[in-house]
Amino acid sequence: MFFGSDNTSGVHPKIMEALARANDGYAAPYAGDRWTAELTERLRDMFQAPDALVYPMVSGTGTNAALLAAMTPPWGIVYCHKTAHIEVDERNSVPFYSGGAKLKLLSGTGSRMAPEELRDAVIRDSGDDIHASPPAAVSLTNLTEFGELYRPADIAALAEASRLPLHLDGARFANAMAASGATPWEMTRELSALSLGATKTGAMGAEAAVLFDPAFKEAFESQRMRGGHNLSKSRYISAQILAWLEGDLWLELATQANAMGTRLAKGIAEIGGDLAYTAEGNLVFARLPRKMHIEAKAKGAVYHFWGPNRALTGDPDEPLLARFVASWSTTEADVDALLAALAD
Amino acid sequence: MFFGSDNTSGVHPKIMEALARANDGYAAPYAGDRWTAELTERLRDMFQAPDALVYPMVSGTGTNAALLAAMTPPWGIVYCHKTAHIEVDERNSVPFYSGGAKLKLLSGTGSRMAPEELRDAVIRDSGDDIHASPPAAVSLTNLTEFGELYRPADIAALAEASRLPLHLDGARFANAMAASGATPWEMTRELSALSLGATKTGAMGAEAAVLFDPAFKEAFESQRMRGGHNLSKSRYISAQILAWLEGDLWLELATQANAMGTRLAKGIAEIGGDLAYTAEGNLVFARLPRKMHIEAKAKGAVYHFWGPNRALTGDPDEPLLARFVASWSTTEADVDALLAALAD
Amino acid sequence: MFFGSDNTSGVHPKIMEALARANDGYAAPYAGDRWTAELTERLRDMFQAPDALVYPMVSGTGTNAALLAAMTPPWGIVYCHKTAHIEVDERNSVPFYSGGAKLKLLSGTGSRMAPEELRDAVIRDSGDDIHASPPAAVSLTNLTEFGELYRPADIAALAEASRLPLHLDGARFANAMAASGATPWEMTRELSALSLGATKTGAMGAEAAVLFDPAFKEAFESQRMRGGHNLSKSRYISAQILAWLEGDLWLELATQANAMGTRLAKGIAEIGGDLAYTAEGNLVFARLPRKMHIEAKAKGAVYHFWGPNRALTGDPDEPLLARFVASWSTTEADVDALLAALAD
Amino acid sequence: MFFGSDNTSGVHPKIMEALARANDGYAAPYAGDRWTAELTERLRDMFQAPDALVYPMVSGTGTNAALLAAMTPPWGIVYCHKTAHIEVDERNSVPFYSGGAKLKLLSGTGSRMAPEELRDAVIRDSGDDIHASPPAAVSLTNLTEFGELYRPADIAALAEASRLPLHLDGARFANAMAASGATPWEMTRELSALSLGATKTGAMGAEAAVLFDPAFKEAFESQRMRGGHNLSKSRYISAQILAWLEGDLWLELATQANAMGTRLAKGIAEIGGDLAYTAEGNLVFARLPRKMHIEAKAKGAVYHFWGPNRALTGDPDEPLLARFVASWSTTEADVDALLAALAD
Repeated sequence: MFFGSDNTSGVHPKIMEALARANDGYAAPYAGDRWTAELTERLRDMFQAPDALVYPMVSGTGTNAALLAAMTPPWGIVYCHKTAHIEVDERNSVPFYSGGAKLKLLSGTGSRMAPEELRDAVIRDSGDDIHASPPAAVSLTNLTEFGELYRPADIAALAEASRLPLHLDGARFANAMAASGATPWEMTRELSALSLGATKTGAMGAEAAVLFDPAFKEAFESQRMRGGHNLSKSRYISAQILAWLEGDLWLELATQANAMGTRLAKGIAEIGGDLAYTAEGNLVFARLPRKMHIEAKAKGAVYHFWGPNRALTGDPDEPLLARFVASWSTTEADVDALLAALAD
Repeated sequence: MFFGSDNTSGVHPKIMEALARANDGYAAPYAGDRWTAELTERLRDMFQAPDALVYPMVSGTGTNAALLAAMTPPWGIVYCHKTAHIEVDERNSVPFYSGGAKLKLLSGTGSRMAPEELRDAVIRDSGDDIHASPPAAVSLTNLTEFGELYRPADIAALAEASRLPLHLDGARFANAMAASGATPWEMTRELSALSLGATKTGAMGAEAAVLFDPAFKEAFESQRMRGGHNLSKSRYISAQILAWLEGDLWLELATQANAMGTRLAKGIAEIGGDLAYTAEGNLVFARLPRKMHIEAKAKGAVYHFWGPNRALTGDPDEPLLARFVASWSTTEADVDALLAALAD
Repeated sequence: MFFGSDNTSGVHPKIMEALARANDGYAAPYAGDRWTAELTERLRDMFQAPDALVYPMVSGTGTNAALLAAMTPPWGIVYCHKTAHIEVDERNSVPFYSGGAKLKLLSGTGSRMAPEELRDAVIRDSGDDIHASPPAAVSLTNLTEFGELYRPADIAALAEASRLPLHLDGARFANAMAASGATPWEMTRELSALSLGATKTGAMGAEAAVLFDPAFKEAFESQRMRGGHNLSKSRYISAQILAWLEGDLWLELATQANAMGTRLAKGIAEIGGDLAYTAEGNLVFARLPRKMHIEAKAKGAVYHFWGPNRALTGDPDEPLLARFVASWSTTEADVDALLAALAD
Repeated sequence: MFFGSDNTSGVHPKIMEALARANDGYAAPYAGDRWTAELTERLRDMFQAPDALVYPMVSGTGTNAALLAAMTPPWGIVYCHKTAHIEVDERNSVPFYSGGAKLKLLSGTGSRMAPEELRDAVIRDSGDDIHASPPAAVSLTNLTEFGELYRPADIAALAEASRLPLHLDGARFANAMAASGATPWEMTRELSALSLGATKTGAMGAEAAVLFDPAFKEAFESQRMRGGHNLSKSRYISAQILAWLEGDLWLELATQANAMGTRLAKGIAEIGGDLAYTAEGNLVFARLPRKMHIEAKAKGAVYHFWGPNRALTGDPDEPLLARFVASWSTTEADVDALLAALAD
C-alpha cells in the first residue's frame, strides 16, 4: 500500500533493459551520443516541431529552473499558480537561477490558473516604469500538483490572456496526456518550453528539456551548464526516454496510474470521503475522518497528510486531508487493500 | 500645487547650511569622518540602543535591499505587505541582493500587515522540509505606501506573531513618528534593522541604515560594499542627517507635511471625495469624479493617478483614484489652491 | 582506440547488476532510502569520519558548486589552480551558486598549487578592509586536470599554508587513491568537503558529496536543493556507489586505468613523444609531431588536442599537444594499438 | 599634508554654489528634472555622441558594476588588469551584479593592460565549448589605480585586440584627460560605456554613467534600478556635474591635481625616492626608506602604504612603498611641506 509518491516506484523493466542495451562500448559524452540524437528526432516528430531543441536532464527542479531562467531577465516576473512546484517545493530555484526574477502567484480555480486573473495581472504589471518588474513568462504545471488537468484549450486560453512565453512543468506530463486524450502537438503547440518528466512514470531518473522556441537556446544551455545539469554519460538518460516512448509505453504506464487514481477516488467517495480536487489523473486528495487514517496507517498504508492538520491524535471524526498517489506499478489489489484498510 | 511626491521638494535651508559647514578641509572617507561618528552617537542615544550600528546611505532601495539581504539566506522568505515598496517599486532588488530570497506577500488590512495572517503564514512555512523555503524575516513600511500608520503596539504584535527579525522601511519614518506621538525607542524596540530615510523629509539624499542587531554586521557591510553603497565622501551624508535631527527639525518638517495631508483629506471629504485609506500622515488617496481631476489638472495641479483607470477622457462622473503627497514645503495655501482647483 | 575521455566508457557490469537489484519495489525518495543510509555508513567507516554527511549526487559540476557555495560567502575568495575544472570547465558555476564569490587563480607547479604561493596570496588578501574580498576556502583537484597527483603530505601543506577550509574535487579520486597508495583517511583528513566522483571510474552517473565539516550542512543542503540536485530516486545513485566500493572495485578499476595510462606514457616516450606533465594516473599529455597524429586519426584513434594549436594541416614535424585518457575499460591491446597507430 | 586620497578633499565652491542654485522649488524626480536633461545634452555634445544615454549616479562601484553587468551575460568573462578597482576594491561587485560573470585578470605592463596579452586571452577563451565561459567585455581604468595613463591610441589598440565592447572606469577621468591632452571624443570613441567620476575631482558625490552603445539600455537601467542607484532627487547630482563641466572647471581642477602629483614625484626623486610607476597624473607611488616615513608621519603627513610591508618599526633604511594622492585642493605649499617632512 505505497501511495506516498509516484517517485517511490521502481523502474519499468523495459527501461532497465534499455539501459543494459545502451551499456555497449564507448559513446561521446555531453549529449553527443547517438541515443540523444535519436531522442531529438523522436520528440521533434512527436511534437511536430522540427526545430525543437532537446536536452537530456535528470532533475525536474533543474529543468524547470534552467528553462525559466532562460525565459526571463533577472528583473522579470514569471506568473504561476500559488501551488506550483516551482513556488512550493524548489527552495527558491527560479530566483536563484535567474539571478533575481520573481514568481507572481495566482489563485486561479482550484489548482489551475484562470485566464482572466492572469490577463489582469499581466496588464497591471505592464508599462514602462523602471521601478516595476516587467512580465516575462508563464509557467503552468500539468497535471497540477493537486492532480488537475489543463486541456489544450485551457492552455490556449492562458497563452491568449498573457501573450507571454509559456513553460509547462510536465513532471506528470504523461498522466496529463493520458487523461486528456490530446495529441502531443495539441498539448504543446502554445509552449515555448517543456519540462518533460519520465522519472515519475517509470524511468530511473530522466527528463527532457524541450525548447520549442530556439531564441532561448544560448541562455538555456548556459544555465544548464553552470547549474551542473550537462551530464557526461548522457546516453543513459536518453536511452531511458527512448524506451519510455517506444510503443507508447509512457501512455500505457500513465493510463494505468490514472486508472488506479480514479478507482481510488471512486472508492473513497463510496466510503464517505470528501474529494478536495477533481481527480483527473493519478493524484487523489481527500478528507477522511481521523479514525480511518488511524486504521489505514496501522495496517501499513503509506501516504502523506496535507495542510496544517496532520496529527493522528485527536477527535476521531475530524476530517484530515490526505494525498494519495498512484503510480505505474500500482495494482487494483493495492487500491482495494487501501480502501479496505481505510474503511475497516 | 505640487503633490506628485515628497521627493520633488527641495532641501531644507538648515540642511543646505550644514552641507556648507561640512565643506571644510579634508576628512577621512568611507564613514571614517567625525560627522558619521557623531551621527552614530546621536542615533544610539535617540533609539536608546547603545550597540546599534549606523551607516550613512543615499538610497532607500539600496538600504532596504542590503539590510534584508543580510537578514535572510538566499533560500529564505521575507514577509511583507503586497503593497510594500520592496515588492512593487524596486525591480526585484531583494531577490537580487540576497541571491534568491523571495518575498511572501500578505494582504493584511488596508495597506498594513495583519498579525493573524502573518502568524499563519510563518507557521505554514516552518518545518524541516528541504524542498520548502524557510521563514527568515519580516519587512514593514511605516508610514505604509498608502499613508497608513503602524503604532508601536502594532509592530509588537507583528514581532510576536512571527518571532522573526523585523526590518522597517522608514522612507517616511519621520511622518510615522510625528503621526504616532511615540518615542523613537517605542517605535523601534522590536526591530533588528531600520532604513531611516531623510530624503523625503527635507534632505538632499540621505538615509541611515541602523542595525539594532549586530549579528547582521558582516553580511550587511558586505552587501552595502558590493552593492556600491559605501560612499567615499560620507561626511556630506551624515552632516545632512545631523542637521535634520538637530532641534527635532525632522519632526517639525514631518508634522508640517502631515498637517497638510490631514487638511487636504478633510477638504477632499468636504467636496465629496472618497478617501481610500485612512490619511494618517502626508499621503492622501482619494476617489474623485473625473471632472474634478480635469479641472485641477487644467489649473496645473501635479499629482498621480493610481490603479488601472487613469484616463482623463470618459464619463465625467466616474471616480478616479488619485494619490496626493504633501511634503515639508507644502503650505496651507498650496492645499487650499488644490482643493479650490478640484472643486471649481 | 577510445582515449577521448574516461566519461566515454560504459558502466561496469557489477554496477549494472547492482542497479537491477535495487530495482525492487518501493523506496523512500530524496535520500530516505536504505541504500543511501548504507552508503553513509560505508563512507563514514572508510574515511574514519563518524560525523561525515553523505549525499548522493549525479553531477560533478553540481557537487563542486554546491559544496563551495556552502563554504564561502558571496563576497569571498576561493583559491584554486588556474587549470582547475571549476575555473575552466564549469561556465562560472561557483560565482553562480555562491551569488558572487570569485576564484583566485594560482599558477603553482605544473598543474598543482604550491603552498608558498597559496600562503602569500591568503596573507595578501587577509585584513579588515571592507573593499576587499576575504579568503574563504581552497579547492584542489586530485588527480589534477593534467593527471598529476597530490599526496597526503601535499594536501597537508596546503592546509597549513592557507588555514582555510579545503575542498577536494575528486572526479578522479579513485585514480588518485590508486596512484598514491594512501588510505582514504590519509587522503581526506585535512578536508572539509569532498566531491567523490564515480562516474569517470565505471559508474553510470553517480557522485557523493561528503561533508566532513557539518558546519556547512544547512547551506550545502539548501544549495543542493535549489540547484536541482536533490534527486528523487536516490536509491539508484547510492546503489551504484555501494557496488563501486564493494570489494574495492573502485580501486581495481582505477588501478587498471592508471596502469594503461602509465603504459601509454612509457610507449609515447619510446616513440619520441614529449610528456608535458608527469603521468601519475590515467591522463597522458604529450607533444607528438603532427604527422603522427595524422596517422593515428586516420586509423580511427579518438582523443583531443590541447591548447591553441590543433590543426591537422601544417608542418608535419611540428609538435601538437594531445590529451589521452585511459579508463577502467581500456585494455593493453587498446594502448598498443594506439601506440602502433601513432608510430606507424 | 593630506595625501591619503583625492576623496578626502572637500567640494569645490562653484559646485557648492550650483547645489544652492538647484535648491529652488519642486523638480521631477528620477532623472526627470531639467538639470539631468541639460547634462545629457552637454555630454552628448562634449563626446560628439548624439545617441549617448546619460544617467546621474553617486557611486563609482555602483556605476561600474551596473554598466558591466549590462555588458556581459552571467556566464561571461570581463577582462581587466589585475590591479583594477573592480577586482581589488569592490568586494566582488561584478560577479554580484552580473549574477556570476568572472573577471579575467591580465598582468599587462605596469598597471595597464597590454594588447597582445589581451588578444591571446580572448582567442584562447573563444570557441563554442559550452563548458567554457565566453568573452564578453573589457574594462580599463584611466588613470589606472597606479596613476598611469592610457592615451587614445592605447585604447584603440585594446579595442582592436579584443573586438569586444569596452568599458572605461573613469574615477579619475578628468586627470586622464588633463594628462593626455586628448579631446573627450578621442578618449571615448572606442567605448561602449563610461563611468565618469566627478567625486574625486571636486564634486560632493556625483558620477555619470554614459552609455555610448544603446543596446545595453534596458539591462543597464534595470541593473541600476534594482541595485538602488536610481536616486530620487537627481537634480542635485546633475547640477554638480554641470557646474563641474562649466568653463572646463573639471580640467582646471584635474590639471592642478596632476601638477601637484608631478611636483611631488620630482621632489621624491630628488630626495632619493624610487618611483614605482610613471606618475602621469595625481597619483605617486614611491619607495622611500622607513626612516623618512617615520619622520613624515611624526609631522602629521597623511598617506597610505602599499603592499605587505607596512610596519613603521624595523630597519630604518629598508624601503617601504607608499601611495601619495594629490587632489584639486592640494597646493604647492602642501607638496613642499610633505617633501620637507620626508627629507628632514
